[in-house]
Amino acid sequence: MAGSSIGKLLVVTNFGESHGPAIGAVLDGVPPGMKLDVNDIQVELDRRKPGTSRHVTQRKESDTVEILSGLYNGVTTGTPIGLLIRNEDQKSKDYSEIANLYRPAHADWTYAQKYGIRDPRGGGRSSARLTAPTVAAGAIAKKWLKDQFNINIQACLIQLGNIELPINDWKEVDQNSFFCADKEIISQLENFMDSLRKSGDSAGGKVFVKAENVPVGIGQPIYDRLDAELAFAFMGLNAVKGVEIGEGIKAARLKGSQNADQMDSKAKDHFLSNHSGGILGGISTGQTVYATVSIKPTPSIRLPLATLNSQMQDTTVSTKGRHDPCVSIRAVPVLEALMALVLMDLILQNHAQTGW
Amino acid sequence: MAGSSIGKLLVVTNFGESHGPAIGAVLDGVPPGMKLDVNDIQVELDRRKPGTSRHVTQRKESDTVEILSGLYNGVTTGTPIGLLIRNEDQKSKDYSEIANLYRPAHADWTYAQKYGIRDPRGGGRSSARLTAPTVAAGAIAKKWLKDQFNINIQACLIQLGNIELPINDWKEVDQNSFFCADKEIISQLENFMDSLRKSGDSAGGKVFVKAENVPVGIGQPIYDRLDAELAFAFMGLNAVKGVEIGEGIKAARLKGSQNADQMDSKAKDHFLSNHSGGILGGISTGQTVYATVSIKPTPSIRLPLATLNSQMQDTTVSTKGRHDPCVSIRAVPVLEALMALVLMDLILQNHAQTGW
Amino acid sequence: MAGSSIGKLLVVTNFGESHGPAIGAVLDGVPPGMKLDVNDIQVELDRRKPGTSRHVTQRKESDTVEILSGLYNGVTTGTPIGLLIRNEDQKSKDYSEIANLYRPAHADWTYAQKYGIRDPRGGGRSSARLTAPTVAAGAIAKKWLKDQFNINIQACLIQLGNIELPINDWKEVDQNSFFCADKEIISQLENFMDSLRKSGDSAGGKVFVKAENVPVGIGQPIYDRLDAELAFAFMGLNAVKGVEIGEGIKAARLKGSQNADQMDSKAKDHFLSNHSGGILGGISTGQTVYATVSIKPTPSIRLPLATLNSQMQDTTVSTKGRHDPCVSIRAVPVLEALMALVLMDLILQNHAQTGW
Amino acid sequence: MAGSSIGKLLVVTNFGESHGPAIGAVLDGVPPGMKLDVNDIQVELDRRKPGTSRHVTQRKESDTVEILSGLYNGVTTGTPIGLLIRNEDQKSKDYSEIANLYRPAHADWTYAQKYGIRDPRGGGRSSARLTAPTVAAGAIAKKWLKDQFNINIQACLIQLGNIELPINDWKEVDQNSFFCADKEIISQLENFMDSLRKSGDSAGGKVFVKAENVPVGIGQPIYDRLDAELAFAFMGLNAVKGVEIGEGIKAARLKGSQNADQMDSKAKDHFLSNHSGGILGGISTGQTVYATVSIKPTPSIRLPLATLNSQMQDTTVSTKGRHDPCVSIRAVPVLEALMALVLMDLILQNHAQTGW
Repeated sequence: MAGSSIGKLLVVTNFGESHGPAIGAVLDGVPPGMKLDVNDIQVELDRRKPGTSRHVTQRKESDTVEILSGLYNGVTTGTPIGLLIRNEDQKSKDYSEIANLYRPAHADWTYAQKYGIRDPRGGGRSSARLTAPTVAAGAIAKKWLKDQFNINIQACLIQLGNIELPINDWKEVDQNSFFCADKEIISQLENFMDSLRKSGDSAGGKVFVKAENVPVGIGQPIYDRLDAELAFAFMGLNAVKGVEIGEGIKAARLKGSQNADQMDSKAKDHFLSNHSGGILGGISTGQTVYATVSIKPTPSIRLPLATLNSQMQDTTVSTKGRHDPCVSIRAVPVLEALMALVLMDLILQNHAQTGW
Repeated sequence: MAGSSIGKLLVVTNFGESHGPAIGAVLDGVPPGMKLDVNDIQVELDRRKPGTSRHVTQRKESDTVEILSGLYNGVTTGTPIGLLIRNEDQKSKDYSEIANLYRPAHADWTYAQKYGIRDPRGGGRSSARLTAPTVAAGAIAKKWLKDQFNINIQACLIQLGNIELPINDWKEVDQNSFFCADKEIISQLENFMDSLRKSGDSAGGKVFVKAENVPVGIGQPIYDRLDAELAFAFMGLNAVKGVEIGEGIKAARLKGSQNADQMDSKAKDHFLSNHSGGILGGISTGQTVYATVSIKPTPSIRLPLATLNSQMQDTTVSTKGRHDPCVSIRAVPVLEALMALVLMDLILQNHAQTGW
Repeated sequence: MAGSSIGKLLVVTNFGESHGPAIGAVLDGVPPGMKLDVNDIQVELDRRKPGTSRHVTQRKESDTVEILSGLYNGVTTGTPIGLLIRNEDQKSKDYSEIANLYRPAHADWTYAQKYGIRDPRGGGRSSARLTAPTVAAGAIAKKWLKDQFNINIQACLIQLGNIELPINDWKEVDQNSFFCADKEIISQLENFMDSLRKSGDSAGGKVFVKAENVPVGIGQPIYDRLDAELAFAFMGLNAVKGVEIGEGIKAARLKGSQNADQMDSKAKDHFLSNHSGGILGGISTGQTVYATVSIKPTPSIRLPLATLNSQMQDTTVSTKGRHDPCVSIRAVPVLEALMALVLMDLILQNHAQTGW
Repeated sequence: MAGSSIGKLLVVTNFGESHGPAIGAVLDGVPPGMKLDVNDIQVELDRRKPGTSRHVTQRKESDTVEILSGLYNGVTTGTPIGLLIRNEDQKSKDYSEIANLYRPAHADWTYAQKYGIRDPRGGGRSSARLTAPTVAAGAIAKKWLKDQFNINIQACLIQLGNIELPINDWKEVDQNSFFCADKEIISQLENFMDSLRKSGDSAGGKVFVKAENVPVGIGQPIYDRLDAELAFAFMGLNAVKGVEIGEGIKAARLKGSQNADQMDSKAKDHFLSNHSGGILGGISTGQTVYATVSIKPTPSIRLPLATLNSQMQDTTVSTKGRHDPCVSIRAVPVLEALMALVLMDLILQNHAQTGW
């Protein structure tokens, strides 16, 4: 059963494993005529790549992307864009031990049960490394949305463990190792992460992601709604356990009179508030689309955990290696990419249907 | 652009409007040989249908379903199952007023902007009435899952406005008007709803939904994951603003050592806990799959709200009519149906891929 | 496994059996704002319906279509259009005999082997009756293509058994029982058919189908080509065994210099000939798109044939009943419908991709 | 608009251009646990690759394939298989002349009109070179079908220009440059091709393709039929203009009594003949599935043809370069690959649906 593609008119097909020869994606459906340079993609991959600070995995990967097709003279031709990233840091280490253990909260167990076989090297296909092709494809979608509609997509970390991170200045986000929109809290985050690493444990977090200037009318009412497609994309990202649109779960405590975004002819984008997250009836309102994504702590930790081996015997596992103590941090550029891919797909869909 | 179908191997295609001649669905992909009676479907529709208590909409609809195809001698043939529900209570009232107003938090605005035309009668296609075909299709999936795997799917209301409803006894759920699993709290809920109705306002809520006995191995790693598909289905339901799998957003505050479901050879389903909600790496673990869904308050309220008319002039709207003061209640059987449709689809997918 | 839908942006989902309660389709993806009357559809169904002459099946079906959704005030709303046709002439005859026999060249054998169960009444889902929903959906596509691009889609019978029917006057096509574009040959066809019926045998035939004014640029290069999509749609029609685009199989005998459609600035649509059938590289050239479809003789004949019963014992079968002696005749409006559905889908696809 | 994928449960996504950095495919949906070696793929690519004789294009390409993912320890893991073929012989020649001319019968015109931009180097994406990824993916499907069902897929050339090639001995097919199943006619073919090349013209041809041991029950009745899917795949191959299943267009001249495959308990596979080509009602019968594919002459010829340039001025074009004088020859392994991909996909589909 296939199932490694996302999108309907703009389709990303993802392939690869953590320690195989290469990872990559085919992005099919980009309209012809868009200027595209490999650096437009590399800059996004560099935001996600490992080793950018001591707070993320120390694996050495340049994540250099090669564009294999779909470009001619620096312009998209309308044909599929092949994207290739070679795996460089595939240590020839012995995986025989981990190959026989199921790390709790990890996909080891489910892969082994589903397929009867699994690639144990670096988690195989369940590795967060496989978000790199998504980021590469999303970079192209981001550029197209910016070029065509001036859409700005941005995400930032808003919670790290129990620490809540205020959004004070979006310009700060790319100035620190945490994609944090508040300068003041950075040292607190660094201390938290340092002690987390020392303890051999990991932490969860939350990411806020938004898109400005999304045109009104994007999304299909039943079932291919904008909110549903965003939830599909975001919940499909490794370790995500909660997706909220607009007010999210807080909306469940509001009265209808409190949650209503009243309208006014003089208001920006026609609305006096944006509890809806820019989506009503599954369709964009013309306001900023925003969502909050909750991410569980990294399953691979140094602290010992009770588990089973592949002979179904009781044992313990303590995961050494180069894991992110908090995968939420590097999730930031990935969620931006997913937001871009969903929006571009639905904009193309809407274009096919309307304007006749 | 099409977009009214859900599923890949088990596909539901939904059609209809609130006040058109009929609503319905085509369910394609049900294996041959399953015993099916129209009552298997009707019983689920009756749980969702309007007018079952004073706390839900008072519209008069029997929601009688007709099976148009795919059955022979009481057994499924493997061909598409056509499901038809006639609309009965289409009052010949004048919709000209509402046709020119955009109700805040409702889909009026987005439909009008997207399509340039909208059916104002009862909300047209944006009406929650369109969840009935989903429930009808889901009833068939539920039966198949029960017959084949003894899978039990159940949901209950766990929050109504600010009131949290404990899960004390699943047998209570179908014994009251609120799909509530706690007998003691019912009178409090009734008082809340009565005063809510009197105030002309509406309330949000939360639903918990679970599936027991889901086989291990269901879901594709990237992107068609079980968690992603559930999020797509649930977030696509009218008024849903948040979807959480397992611990959900609480997982963001946990350490890796706390969130890990440790394994033990003597534990039920091999795990000592189920923070994951029965899903790891996008694939079912063999444990109970569960999710929490947060639903905003009904947008159609009697209290006046500032809005625009179709000439983009400022005005106010006060929605009379027969609306649910809390759509979360009737969402319970719909979420069960969506859970069933997703699980059956992914089980068929998994079957196609494995066991060779 | 689903598989009862055709199209990507314009999706027809077909349901029903010959003698079940009803047959129908959901057509999803029609843009909003098109004027549509039920008669626009009925007129096409009337061309296909049984009993229009003694040369086709004598089953009594009015094939009256009901539009269940997707229309408001006579205009499409952009939401799915539900189409319902009740089966009327379901004789309460005893099917137990035929239920145990596999008619040669019929789908009895394959359905029984595939599903382990089959609906024997009138052939169940393998009946040519199931082309009616396709015709109904195609009528809407035809109207849209005509309204938007002045596209004319027409088909005619060009071979009946061994008789070749010239295309002399397209206006004749709807003036006779054979969809024949030549007045002179009608009496010869009538004699042929009368003697065929008398003999208890059946005959094959060929249909020519064309679309004028198709815009240039429709179709995707690999794999979703215009020629491939047409072949899929046409070969999927009951009894079709050959599909040719443009010169078709004759092209295999031509030299490159003979088959080339040379270009000239003064030529109509820029080309001096149209061997290609209006398609190059899978994409429309702007010329008339045309194809030839070869159809086998009806399998249900009165002449006795050696066969097996469901206990796998040797026996013979002679099919009585109300079968078309030549299904090619009534295939004419169906092929027009399929051409329309494919073209509209690919035009919507092209629109999504280009013009940015 | 995407459109570069084929298949539903087994999906091939194709990317690349003739003179870009690389071509390739992602094959998604291969079950886990199949032994696979890169040579299993290379051997099929070698059959298709250019330069194997003087009768095909003289472009120098080793068509060496690299497997990027989906394999671990020589066994498929159930995850997507990335396949990469570098383009080696991208001559740095000047394409400015051809870039401004539309070669008759070629896709130059349609690409330019559709996309507004085209990659003129070697025909860009319209090059027959893009069939190599299909062959690579098909090789994997072929192996799986052989391993699981002992299905043999074979094709051979049965017409070259006006010369008809008998099928005398399938073992000859890979012993000559023409994929011809008759030793005696080879020298005639060589003479034909030598004089064709000398004349600067090109020729069409026909290919016969069959699959033995296909299990009964493969295909969906409406619309995703086995015959329809084969027609889609075959007609989607460059230069194909006709597809026939079983008797094909000859069936149109047969009586029902002649075309019927009568059944007999002692007959091989239960049938006394195989006019149907192993498909009834869109579903496999258990007999050999076979088809005939007609292919037009290569459009790129040395003889001068009237055409237009991109300023829409009249001119002539004479195509130099390294083109196949008859693309039918190298179509043989491609049609085998397409047959394999379709059959494997439909077998997976059937498996999902039945056997419960």
